[in-house]
Amino acid sequence: MAEKFRLLGLPGSLRKKSASRAVLRWLQTALPPDVEMEIFELGEIALYNEDLDDDRPAPVRALFDKVKAADGLVVLTPEYNHGMSGVLKNAIDWISRPGYNSILKGKPVAALTTSESPLGGVRAQSDLHMVFLSCLSRIVLGKEVTIGGTAKAIIDGKLVDEALQKRILAHIDLLLEEICLVQGRKR
Amino acid sequence: MAEKFRLLGLPGSLRKKSASRAVLRWLQTALPPDVEMEIFELGEIALYNEDLDDDRPAPVRALFDKVKAADGLVVLTPEYNHGMSGVLKNAIDWISRPGYNSILKGKPVAALTTSESPLGGVRAQSDLHMVFLSCLSRIVLGKEVTIGGTAKAIIDGKLVDEALQKRILAHIDLLLEEICLVQGRKR
Amino acid sequence: MAEKFRLLGLPGSLRKKSASRAVLRWLQTALPPDVEMEIFELGEIALYNEDLDDDRPAPVRALFDKVKAADGLVVLTPEYNHGMSGVLKNAIDWISRPGYNSILKGKPVAALTTSESPLGGVRAQSDLHMVFLSCLSRIVLGKEVTIGGTAKAIIDGKLVDEALQKRILAHIDLLLEEICLVQGRKR
Amino acid sequence: MAEKFRLLGLPGSLRKKSASRAVLRWLQTALPPDVEMEIFELGEIALYNEDLDDDRPAPVRALFDKVKAADGLVVLTPEYNHGMSGVLKNAIDWISRPGYNSILKGKPVAALTTSESPLGGVRAQSDLHMVFLSCLSRIVLGKEVTIGGTAKAIIDGKLVDEALQKRILAHIDLLLEEICLVQGRKR
Repeated sequence: MAEKFRLLGLPGSLRKKSASRAVLRWLQTALPPDVEMEIFELGEIALYNEDLDDDRPAPVRALFDKVKAADGLVVLTPEYNHGMSGVLKNAIDWISRPGYNSILKGKPVAALTTSESPLGGVRAQSDLHMVFLSCLSRIVLGKEVTIGGTAKAIIDGKLVDEALQKRILAHIDLLLEEICLVQGRKR
Repeated sequence: MAEKFRLLGLPGSLRKKSASRAVLRWLQTALPPDVEMEIFELGEIALYNEDLDDDRPAPVRALFDKVKAADGLVVLTPEYNHGMSGVLKNAIDWISRPGYNSILKGKPVAALTTSESPLGGVRAQSDLHMVFLSCLSRIVLGKEVTIGGTAKAIIDGKLVDEALQKRILAHIDLLLEEICLVQGRKR
Repeated sequence: MAEKFRLLGLPGSLRKKSASRAVLRWLQTALPPDVEMEIFELGEIALYNEDLDDDRPAPVRALFDKVKAADGLVVLTPEYNHGMSGVLKNAIDWISRPGYNSILKGKPVAALTTSESPLGGVRAQSDLHMVFLSCLSRIVLGKEVTIGGTAKAIIDGKLVDEALQKRILAHIDLLLEEICLVQGRKR
Repeated sequence: MAEKFRLLGLPGSLRKKSASRAVLRWLQTALPPDVEMEIFELGEIALYNEDLDDDRPAPVRALFDKVKAADGLVVLTPEYNHGMSGVLKNAIDWISRPGYNSILKGKPVAALTTSESPLGGVRAQSDLHMVFLSCLSRIVLGKEVTIGGTAKAIIDGKLVDEALQKRILAHIDLLLEEICLVQGRKR
């Protein structure tokens, strides 16, 4: 049997009722059988300090290992001040070294955003694009998927909006296509 | 005698030999006599968690107090992955609540960047602009000041490039003008 | 009697049923009595050519005169490819010379966007912010006003959404406040 | 003999001594033998009008045909007001319809910028990235190539800076790699 596609989910928010985490947890239950996804929480990642690039704290090393091993990333962040969360940017700052040649180089990335507003955090999505492009990652090309109006779309921690579910799964399909393209692999 | 202008300097990097901090320290020695600037280090600021908005950790509260009391901010950040440091973004995430009505609203801000490259971190400057605009802060209007080629411009922790020194001080003058405009104050 | 505030409206789209133009036309009828606004159509503006900076075509000169005479600008653009329209960017390229010292320097600008999508063209708004900041214009500070879902909000060329009408007028109030601040004028 | 790689060069500036055009002309002489590149001038492209999407002017149709036939694009623009030229954005607005499904979808694109300043127009490069991503084009992943200090790098209309020449050719190599990846083709 073919090896499974291994995805890594990164939620950009630390709060308990994080919409980003809720969507990732729903996604774990909805993925096709040939795909598995682990979620990595960023709460233990220290503030980035370049002096420690050769002596990274243990949680940072764990994040490195998980990102390196993943076939692709699924990044979900709330929009804070028109950008991604500082929590997520800080984690990326660690794993993006050395510049232009980090474990993010060539890595397929699906970049999604959540927001209570109908704007769906789409400016944070542009921010994710800019940052992952700078890391030479392969951002999934597809119409943006924004998870807006989270107060209605997510109930009791569960993503219940079926139209959104379909759009997210279609975007994950594009992520898998990109992984196949880069790895010369077939589904 | 008129009260002094009180500025707050925020360095975006935690490393010991941070160019951002070095420039801020030089600036402290070069400010006109009617201006004083404190530097606030971001190393103790926890990762932002919205659940704690009503129960902020002590270092975050200290940052709040300093920002609130300041007539204007001088933000200096290295460019990481084409944006500001996650360390700085994370700090802004804390102090930008509640959205559109935080202590950053209407606050004059000088946004400068440092980089070893000749590009001077100018994309991080655009990022600062986007984020502070979202907070309704008053970004100083002036030709961008980028501190590039830091390996030559900063020697033994001291900013030695005189042309850069002049450009930075001219930008601080614009910051003071904006403060005067907003506060209806004269120099 | 005090002189009226003179605004200049710039629609970023040339199509007949442009939502941007429709909103500007509605705005003309809804402005307070001490404010008047002219709309300048960009259809006659030639493609920008730096060689002609000293010999600008007549429609470009007309645009210069109108922008120079205006107390503030009201820019409304559809979102094309996540940015403002090329039509609008091209017009700005003409009037933004000489760099950092053009007639746009210090000019108060309200930047609004339209879109059929619920996202309301908000990424084009970020683009407007970036570009007008580079011209040292004074972008109105306020929660973004996006005119999304134009198929419902605009009927028979008329903006009928009352909640949107209020938000736009509130944003124009902020524009007038900024004009007063810069000109040392009172309402 | 294998078919040649066909590139299309798009200069974002119309002025006679355009640095963007100069670089593209030099590139034509420096390409490997299995690659050819045509340059398409944007001076005849009308201002975009959505009403004409089904009745495009002849120069726009010509641009469509050239872009469609090209294996990849080489876009070179000066930085105007921190973004690409309106001339270029306007051309992209035409060829990016219908949204998310235009001839730009999946098209490999090398996005380069020129500037007299040492900043090299890098913010216009971010703008190009944002816009081509929105068209689902495949932006070449590689360290940015900025052609700054054009007054020295380009003499008598010729790119003479050898370090820059090498960086540009290396970036074109990455473009060809991306074309091969997408087309399942080998060099």
